[in-house]
Amino acid sequence: MLAGYFPFWGASLLVYFAEVEPILFVPQIEPRDHVPAGLRIRDYPWGDLKCADPYSVLVSAIGNALVKAGIKADQVGMNPGVSRTSLPIQAAEQIPIPENFAERLSALAARRDAQCRTAFADLYLRKTPEEIKAIRLANQVANIGLQVFFENLQPGTSEAEVAAAVESVIYRQIGRCDEDSVGIFHSRSWAMVQSGPNSADAGRFNRSTGRRLENGDLVLIELATCVNGYWSDLTRTAAVGSPNPAVAPILALAKDAQQAAIDAIRPGVSAAHIDAKARDRIAAQGLSDFFTHHTGHHVGFRYHDPGFIIAPGESATLESGMVITIEPGVYVPERGGGARIEDNVLVTESGHEALSRIAGSEQT
Amino acid sequence: MLAGYFPFWGASLLVYFAEVEPILFVPQIEPRDHVPAGLRIRDYPWGDLKCADPYSVLVSAIGNALVKAGIKADQVGMNPGVSRTSLPIQAAEQIPIPENFAERLSALAARRDAQCRTAFADLYLRKTPEEIKAIRLANQVANIGLQVFFENLQPGTSEAEVAAAVESVIYRQIGRCDEDSVGIFHSRSWAMVQSGPNSADAGRFNRSTGRRLENGDLVLIELATCVNGYWSDLTRTAAVGSPNPAVAPILALAKDAQQAAIDAIRPGVSAAHIDAKARDRIAAQGLSDFFTHHTGHHVGFRYHDPGFIIAPGESATLESGMVITIEPGVYVPERGGGARIEDNVLVTESGHEALSRIAGSEQT
Repeated sequence: MLAGYFPFWGASLLVYFAEVEPILFVPQIEPRDHVPAGLRIRDYPWGDLKCADPYSVLVSAIGNALVKAGIKADQVGMNPGVSRTSLPIQAAEQIPIPENFAERLSALAARRDAQCRTAFADLYLRKTPEEIKAIRLANQVANIGLQVFFENLQPGTSEAEVAAAVESVIYRQIGRCDEDSVGIFHSRSWAMVQSGPNSADAGRFNRSTGRRLENGDLVLIELATCVNGYWSDLTRTAAVGSPNPAVAPILALAKDAQQAAIDAIRPGVSAAHIDAKARDRIAAQGLSDFFTHHTGHHVGFRYHDPGFIIAPGESATLESGMVITIEPGVYVPERGGGARIEDNVLVTESGHEALSRIAGSEQT
Repeated sequence: MLAGYFPFWGASLLVYFAEVEPILFVPQIEPRDHVPAGLRIRDYPWGDLKCADPYSVLVSAIGNALVKAGIKADQVGMNPGVSRTSLPIQAAEQIPIPENFAERLSALAARRDAQCRTAFADLYLRKTPEEIKAIRLANQVANIGLQVFFENLQPGTSEAEVAAAVESVIYRQIGRCDEDSVGIFHSRSWAMVQSGPNSADAGRFNRSTGRRLENGDLVLIELATCVNGYWSDLTRTAAVGSPNPAVAPILALAKDAQQAAIDAIRPGVSAAHIDAKARDRIAAQGLSDFFTHHTGHHVGFRYHDPGFIIAPGESATLESGMVITIEPGVYVPERGGGARIEDNVLVTESGHEALSRIAGSEQT
């Protein structure tokens, strides 16, 4: 986050000093055109067959950097709430960090029992203008995928085929530039499509099956998109042709509940209040038992950022710079369908901005 | 592994007794058609907004099951070498396990300081006939993707476009059945394509860029495929048209080195011996500096299974039932290209079987 850099391979580690220029430790195998300029870079032999323990080299190098900077580390800890490494942006696996890595790092510090949770966890909550720009780009790219979703809602097409078409167009954006000439070097997504009766499961789980779409179905897409390391988390629900009468009100209600929650977003408002705005609309139709999950969560550095959720009883308040999802849903198996609409909303000084709503591109 | 089951959502936990029927604890939100028959199933409220701490419910339920079975647990530990949860087969994130989960589990046991590494790690190394069948299916599906790779090697197509086409056709297999009527409920892949000079980087990292293919390029695809929870890890390198004269010998050498290693696979042979078979061929051409990584690793439960690697100095020996990758590569920036060929090879009683080589489907 602090360097505007997401590793492709291996584990990178940023040492960020209060008064000295930061140092980024990167594996030797990392693509160098991907490492940001303006940082001091040190590499270490991760991925080198001849080096049995690259982490020992890394820890010593960090220790040397601290000594050279005249810094005596008092505490070293890992933030377990953020999990062990950042999400991989390229491959199918996260990088395993050796189990004793935190202990090895703590050997550099005076105190051995420290944990540093809040300082780093807070960095996830408020996004900088540069980060917001990157999250907006992720949403713009995701929106290209959503257009393909709407175009593919044809009877006879399978859920997996719709999802595959969405993921494909998003991947193909690599190499393009946005309107500000920001190059897209990474663009990947996970699309999960549920149709007809399967859409009623979408409050519990998301997956694509081989079921083929039928006229009147509600079709829901859950779409996680990662562009240049920043994430968008969107959901759309639409009908194949005209929605079946049993499910049409469900779709309308999900949209109405979502809009009510978004309209209430501004600095100082509690998460519980935002949640209630959506939940009350659904309860007013007697359907509160069919909205069992939270209304939203922080998003941008990951598909689901750590931090408070938008849910009943959550007293934490919104601040400008936060980016949250708003995603109420109504899933009614006995009516044969479910609907959720999800946008990524920036809390601004004066209210909010839905980063994922692109003018002229929405379909209803 | 022991249940033939990979969770979609949340954390599932199998309690496997020596003499009593196993119990599988699954989140309430998990799709039930996905949970294997023939197991005792208990659910717990993971994903339920009203339950603040589902893991406490889970741990108590496990404790009750142990009491009911008359079992006094002596040791409880987690296997850090296998990382914290299995890979997610559906969404973009692994499930975070609470940091104190191992401690909570160990409260059920007489000893608090236990770690159980080797017992579970060994399960990764030898695959059962059922698991081999599932890994073979993953390779068959991956092969459909590789055919699309070969078909898309046209001048003017971008690396990302080729990769997107491969991933798309693999995703579209969901809902189909294999020749033994095994249904494909999950089929996803990560394809990374590097062309021309970019292929010379493939020994360090894999990624797809917007570079467009040119006649004579070597084009390398790294393809991780997950079908029904089982993984294939393949690489192919091919030329656009006829390979440029500078890189043609590189491609031939990678193929030759790979075949030499595969030919040597049988029970009782050391990993170092297999590695040397490939490495010696490359050294004989004076190119040993351009093959810097290992020759292979275990594969099947993950993209990279834990366990010994096929590398110099590794004295561990192959046993029947192991499935390993064989993936030597030669990457020469000054010649403008690199090549790697990777197959997934089963060690059989009498020798080996390349699970990823499908008769009639190879292109040269």
